[in-house]
Amino acid sequence: MTRYERFFSKLAASMRASDIRELLKLAEKGDVISLAGGLPDPRSFPLREIAEISSYVVENYGEKALQYSPTRGVSYFLNSVRDFANRHGIEVRSDDGIMATVGSQQGLYLIGRALLDPGDLVVTEEPAYLGAIQAFRVAGARFLTVPIDEEGMRTDVLEEKLRSLDSGDRERAKIIYTVATCNNPSGTTLPLDRRRHLLEIAERYDLLVVEDDPYRFITFSEEAEAVPLKSLDRDGRVIYMSSFSKILAPGLRLGWLAGPEPVVSKLELVKQSIDLHTPSLTQFIAAEALNRGVVDNHLPRIRSLYREKRDAMLEALEEYMPPGVRWTRPIGGFFVWTWFPGSVNARRLLEKAINRGVAFVPGDAFHPNGGGENTARLNFSYPPPDAIREGVRRLAETLREELGEAKA
Amino acid sequence: MTRYERFFSKLAASMRASDIRELLKLAEKGDVISLAGGLPDPRSFPLREIAEISSYVVENYGEKALQYSPTRGVSYFLNSVRDFANRHGIEVRSDDGIMATVGSQQGLYLIGRALLDPGDLVVTEEPAYLGAIQAFRVAGARFLTVPIDEEGMRTDVLEEKLRSLDSGDRERAKIIYTVATCNNPSGTTLPLDRRRHLLEIAERYDLLVVEDDPYRFITFSEEAEAVPLKSLDRDGRVIYMSSFSKILAPGLRLGWLAGPEPVVSKLELVKQSIDLHTPSLTQFIAAEALNRGVVDNHLPRIRSLYREKRDAMLEALEEYMPPGVRWTRPIGGFFVWTWFPGSVNARRLLEKAINRGVAFVPGDAFHPNGGGENTARLNFSYPPPDAIREGVRRLAETLREELGEAKA
Repeated sequence: MTRYERFFSKLAASMRASDIRELLKLAEKGDVISLAGGLPDPRSFPLREIAEISSYVVENYGEKALQYSPTRGVSYFLNSVRDFANRHGIEVRSDDGIMATVGSQQGLYLIGRALLDPGDLVVTEEPAYLGAIQAFRVAGARFLTVPIDEEGMRTDVLEEKLRSLDSGDRERAKIIYTVATCNNPSGTTLPLDRRRHLLEIAERYDLLVVEDDPYRFITFSEEAEAVPLKSLDRDGRVIYMSSFSKILAPGLRLGWLAGPEPVVSKLELVKQSIDLHTPSLTQFIAAEALNRGVVDNHLPRIRSLYREKRDAMLEALEEYMPPGVRWTRPIGGFFVWTWFPGSVNARRLLEKAINRGVAFVPGDAFHPNGGGENTARLNFSYPPPDAIREGVRRLAETLREELGEAKA
Repeated sequence: MTRYERFFSKLAASMRASDIRELLKLAEKGDVISLAGGLPDPRSFPLREIAEISSYVVENYGEKALQYSPTRGVSYFLNSVRDFANRHGIEVRSDDGIMATVGSQQGLYLIGRALLDPGDLVVTEEPAYLGAIQAFRVAGARFLTVPIDEEGMRTDVLEEKLRSLDSGDRERAKIIYTVATCNNPSGTTLPLDRRRHLLEIAERYDLLVVEDDPYRFITFSEEAEAVPLKSLDRDGRVIYMSSFSKILAPGLRLGWLAGPEPVVSKLELVKQSIDLHTPSLTQFIAAEALNRGVVDNHLPRIRSLYREKRDAMLEALEEYMPPGVRWTRPIGGFFVWTWFPGSVNARRLLEKAINRGVAFVPGDAFHPNGGGENTARLNFSYPPPDAIREGVRRLAETLREELGEAKA
């Protein structure tokens, strides 16, 4: 028989299936309420509209929608996205490059491949989005992590950390990666003054900023000062990325990014070798949905769906959690972040919680340099409100038991 | 202003837009007949069926077809592909891994990333598929090239070349990459005895075989002995990949691969960091098309469409080409390969040909280690038969002029 080990690249040999993923498979059985996922509620998909649009674009634009298309994307799609973005306060300039991606995950991977050499430094909030950690880690990056508080990245600490880098590491520091609005996993939204501060720092330390912004359209608070970093950028430093996964349907796997043309043209060259281009059909479907107003008209319904769930989670946390537990109060998005008392180990807690019928993601997974053992990410987008309440109740019960044991 | 050069990875800094691509942009204007492309004829797309299926799968499987799905692919799709493959003589074993990819280009990229370290050797026929050269080059691979004749890779030379490697390079040689049936760019199909020989050699030198097989279903000859290498593989060495681009629609960007489970599970881990998964919707569309028999019923029509075009090209070559020009006689696929007299430089010829109103791809582009200056790839899948005939006539005229000049 063939032995395969000799054929694997160093990268592949180093990769393992995530142990959390394995642990969470246990949660797929029986009566376990999962607060561990990150899926949109399928009731948010405009099924009838997408069904109608799909057959319409094939019938009317079939020779293009079913044909190969440019690596950057289909111009109907790119123009529609540019309009949509500008209509929603995301300033995509006329000289910016814009590109379709297979989900924003692909945008992250392309950035890793085109901007990072092994050993380069990515600056990011901690906890940070898992998909970004993966994509940048595959590129061989190291992470310079900046702690958060209830409002997101501590930009004062960011500055301090950059200042104290030695000259070698300062040279290797290339990008600040952030989900500034309704962060995954933390649910925080960066205030305007910190946004400005972050951009000042990027300029002072000559860094690019990667603004990963999938939750912008799912905010419940009118007064949110969540101006995109992209729109505050006067220096051509921000690469903005977003996605149709949360506002139309994730099964399209359709994202986009916009940024300085010299950078986007490098991302394009890398993408060409990866998959030639993003499917034409999904681009035509999304473009048509944008132009018919399906996305815009649909947003209020999505927002109220998720707001109800966010409220259910925050109320249940308030009602059931023992003293000493803290959590964020997201103005939108899919997630709440919780800090347990320091004695609690969230992985150990997860095993017990699954036995009590609730699952979550232990927070250490979102800490690329270690730490966060007493934290957890709770998802409210997928389960129904009743399940959210019952899930939080079970989690609180497990936690009370754990704290009692720890005291004993 | 921000200077971007400092941010590029070594890979990105080394990448340039292809000069041939630039040259061929000239051919997009005016009255130029392009034999340079590689697009399917849009008349081959079953538009009405895909329109109907698209709305059907959204309406009936919408909660799954529009939701996130596993990195390996949607099980409805994977099961349908396995059946389709086995029905057409491609032996996908029950213990093989199988995975959906964003076009087979992504399969190539994943193989590059999961199997190749910089400096590793890829063995391939010469000329070789450009997308594979790109994907493996991005992984830092070197190429060990094996010349072709009218029947494809010279497996006698393959063996000789492997035998004469030093022990270091023998260790670095990992895969044989081949398009054994209706090769792009050469149009050749490897005979059965060479297929067996290639597999023997793979076993003797402990190599994996990557069989890239998008044209299998577009063959015009009943007696073709084009048994898949995958079906001859008794040793678990073949990674098979194919695509729906030529038999359904390239705008779906949907490919698949099947091979030894330990290898596929590494490809899956890499894919997870690249895009999480292939769009669910396009997988559902293709699965439904397979299960309704749309693909199988459609194949005869596609074959006769392309056969007419192949015939037009071969007849025109016979009629117009000056003595000393040789070409392949493909039993299917999209391309004919031509060898011009040794004095002809195909890039120089291309500039003149564009002025006379015809374009093609100079063959040196398909030679990763140089060479092939007097060769060219001619495409017959996209232009109508009359344009093919007129294009070949113009090319022959340019060539006669060039040969006259060379003699003078």
